[in-house]
Amino acid sequence: MSIALGEIAVRFGCELRGDPDTRVDHIAPLESAGPGAISYLANPRLTPLLASTRASAVVLDPRSADGSAVAALLDRNPHATFARIAALLYPSPVPHPGIHPSAIVDCSASVDPSAEIGPYSVIGAGARIGARCLVGATCLVGRNARIGADGRLVSRVTIEHDVMIGERVLIHPGVVIGADGFGLARDSDGWIKVPQVGSVRIGDDVEIGANTTIDRGAMDDTVISSGVKLDNQIQIGHNVFVGEHTAIAGCTGVAGSTRIGARCMIGGHVGFAGHIQICDDVVITGKSAVPHSIKQPGIYSGVVGLEPVRTWHRIVARMKLGVRREQRLRKDDTE
Amino acid sequence: MSIALGEIAVRFGCELRGDPDTRVDHIAPLESAGPGAISYLANPRLTPLLASTRASAVVLDPRSADGSAVAALLDRNPHATFARIAALLYPSPVPHPGIHPSAIVDCSASVDPSAEIGPYSVIGAGARIGARCLVGATCLVGRNARIGADGRLVSRVTIEHDVMIGERVLIHPGVVIGADGFGLARDSDGWIKVPQVGSVRIGDDVEIGANTTIDRGAMDDTVISSGVKLDNQIQIGHNVFVGEHTAIAGCTGVAGSTRIGARCMIGGHVGFAGHIQICDDVVITGKSAVPHSIKQPGIYSGVVGLEPVRTWHRIVARMKLGVRREQRLRKDDTE
Amino acid sequence: MSIALGEIAVRFGCELRGDPDTRVDHIAPLESAGPGAISYLANPRLTPLLASTRASAVVLDPRSADGSAVAALLDRNPHATFARIAALLYPSPVPHPGIHPSAIVDCSASVDPSAEIGPYSVIGAGARIGARCLVGATCLVGRNARIGADGRLVSRVTIEHDVMIGERVLIHPGVVIGADGFGLARDSDGWIKVPQVGSVRIGDDVEIGANTTIDRGAMDDTVISSGVKLDNQIQIGHNVFVGEHTAIAGCTGVAGSTRIGARCMIGGHVGFAGHIQICDDVVITGKSAVPHSIKQPGIYSGVVGLEPVRTWHRIVARMKLGVRREQRLRKDDTE
Repeated sequence: MSIALGEIAVRFGCELRGDPDTRVDHIAPLESAGPGAISYLANPRLTPLLASTRASAVVLDPRSADGSAVAALLDRNPHATFARIAALLYPSPVPHPGIHPSAIVDCSASVDPSAEIGPYSVIGAGARIGARCLVGATCLVGRNARIGADGRLVSRVTIEHDVMIGERVLIHPGVVIGADGFGLARDSDGWIKVPQVGSVRIGDDVEIGANTTIDRGAMDDTVISSGVKLDNQIQIGHNVFVGEHTAIAGCTGVAGSTRIGARCMIGGHVGFAGHIQICDDVVITGKSAVPHSIKQPGIYSGVVGLEPVRTWHRIVARMKLGVRREQRLRKDDTE
Repeated sequence: MSIALGEIAVRFGCELRGDPDTRVDHIAPLESAGPGAISYLANPRLTPLLASTRASAVVLDPRSADGSAVAALLDRNPHATFARIAALLYPSPVPHPGIHPSAIVDCSASVDPSAEIGPYSVIGAGARIGARCLVGATCLVGRNARIGADGRLVSRVTIEHDVMIGERVLIHPGVVIGADGFGLARDSDGWIKVPQVGSVRIGDDVEIGANTTIDRGAMDDTVISSGVKLDNQIQIGHNVFVGEHTAIAGCTGVAGSTRIGARCMIGGHVGFAGHIQICDDVVITGKSAVPHSIKQPGIYSGVVGLEPVRTWHRIVARMKLGVRREQRLRKDDTE
Repeated sequence: MSIALGEIAVRFGCELRGDPDTRVDHIAPLESAGPGAISYLANPRLTPLLASTRASAVVLDPRSADGSAVAALLDRNPHATFARIAALLYPSPVPHPGIHPSAIVDCSASVDPSAEIGPYSVIGAGARIGARCLVGATCLVGRNARIGADGRLVSRVTIEHDVMIGERVLIHPGVVIGADGFGLARDSDGWIKVPQVGSVRIGDDVEIGANTTIDRGAMDDTVISSGVKLDNQIQIGHNVFVGEHTAIAGCTGVAGSTRIGARCMIGGHVGFAGHIQICDDVVITGKSAVPHSIKQPGIYSGVVGLEPVRTWHRIVARMKLGVRREQRLRKDDTE
């Protein structure tokens, strides 16, 4: 598929500097782009690359326009516009309506005739698969679960019973939604499992990365709001709430009953304690621990970094030194 | 299903304040409970909720009994009693004995006639599935593996060859038990794989959360003792030993040959070094690193928390300042 | 299978002290070994065990040879030699050539006649499975993906479209290679997905642990070089490059576009920021955060450790004290 720059400019409302009949058919980074490629300037520091790129066109902020040696599409948000152009050049796969003969669909389940169910998938009793859904190979959709219109379970996705998923939700392989939360009561001789009878509700336009897990609620539901983007290998505990348009990077864990606000950006490998509240518009840098609530929007960090191991051991020793001295003194006093 | 409060009181040996004929049929949180619901007081700080709840009954510590406006079941461990009542109201799924026609069971495998094997599951040569086991869809049970009575593999569980699993073990989707440990020998031109010829032994009454992985031992076995509860996305390395009734929260990793004692409570995202020993009755707060053995029971923490990013950068700079000064002085001396 | 020590000595070029006709047929740790077992001394501190072991033979560094009460094979790298002997005693499973009748292989895919495809696996259009590959049960190999000769997908492995995998690559269950990277553009009303049109290229002799995920590149490819060893539950973001013979332990996450050099050793639960460069021959201890590039080979650490919780709270309070004082003073000044 190829598109003329003129058509792109009209469709996305950006200013074109260059020949409107020039056509592009793929995306590429500035450095390695060749004829037919459209690229974009990700970072103003990379502006020098504009002079030497061999792309057929670049998407740029108007302030960088003069540096471009090739056709330029000018937009105040070049990244977003580039993403939209790329989506045009690389359309999402469309479902081939029908149920693969090897799929097992319970007779009480409802699969929209426009949806595709792939090989070896199993759709449980009372489940509902919406219009134009694409359920890939070996997916499991439990009893009474619901997948809204235009959903895509890429392959090997597990949706447990009664989970509700909105429209245009994209779920990658290995994801498990609706497994039991970690609910235990301590007893004299060990742990008693607390039945997890809530479910999971997922809004519209959510994306969920590979091998991420979202547990069902203990009594109420776990909630992932519309527009949330979850990377790979994230763990969402029971009764967590994630607000609209929040994005969370890989390997982050959110313990039970924690509430994360809207439009937050959470780095990778962050760990949230349970039962805390994070307000809207909070940014947390990767690897931070979040042991308490955050009430003010802003950027937060808890990353200590690293050093050559000898230096580091001295830093940690010094960090602990004062308290150790105090403790020794106190011990001397009591003796 | 509904139960009379009188029956509950007798069955679990708790004192009832209220009408023994009142019936409950579901659980709900105090705040949102309505008629027919039974709830419990999770936290003494929430006592004010007792005055306004619309639940039909609550499970309470005797000390909080006076605050309740509705029928109360009194017990010294209200959480555990509530869990038992909930298990009565929401019984675990029972197997429908039989092997789904799409399951592939090796002719030398033994599946108890009371067990259920779900669609597209594959049971290997010599494997044994115990009485009343419920093996859900697309599970893989390897050659000579054994699942004890009343086990439940929810779905998409992978049990590799020769793994031994006790009775009443509950395993959630995406779990992999018995993959090779990370055993490598360094050689002049790279790494040589060390065959992992041990296995995994799992005791009774263990629960294992979604996408958790437990590696097989290098020579001896990896051991998860009875009553252990593992949350989602935990990584247990080869030859690890976890003692009875220890509970570990999500995203924690335990490196090879580490031994964790009994009745420990380990938070989420904790990282254990390899070849260390943690004694019984240790609590470790979430996100801590555990670089060395722990010999005294108690609560341990290594979480530095987080701050607004500017404050945080100052804290880290100051933390490193003293050592940097020393290093500069020493460098000046040698020059 | 059993081998005579004489044969081992010749095959691996090590010196034998003892009877060349003694045969060994399994490996075992020094402490628990019995007749027929071959063992090795993992750590010079364990030398006393040599006097009491009941193994039939041990692999040793020549410097420890005198301590051995049983037959000894002497080699400067006893661990590597032991690994090679173990591989002889426990050969990898060989494929039983053929395609299981339940596997679904697209008519345009090419499966080498010497390869084995297990039950319920699905091989997409244009995919190529090389000679002697062993693809276990329920694996998914996407459109135009390629698995080189002697590859082994143990079971339940997901390889998405166009992913290229070299020779002798071993991939454990739950691995997902080629899912979309976490590419998002921010827009006024949320996030726009950036199509991920790169792929993943994996070299020869790579091992990938259970439930690890490797995302496809945004425009260029994600690259895992030959000889790399990845443990379980690792997350590799889009456009990451990992150099030859680097080993990474479990639960580590590498954010997008980061480049890790050759022969690095990365501990477990390490978190790498995106867009940074780590040079060759870097060792990073487990649980460290890596927020910036590393330009010098060496050992780096960022682990603060843990303490009894009261001590720890004092340490953290003191760590933050100076900055808090400054901030209070500055606030007083402005008031």
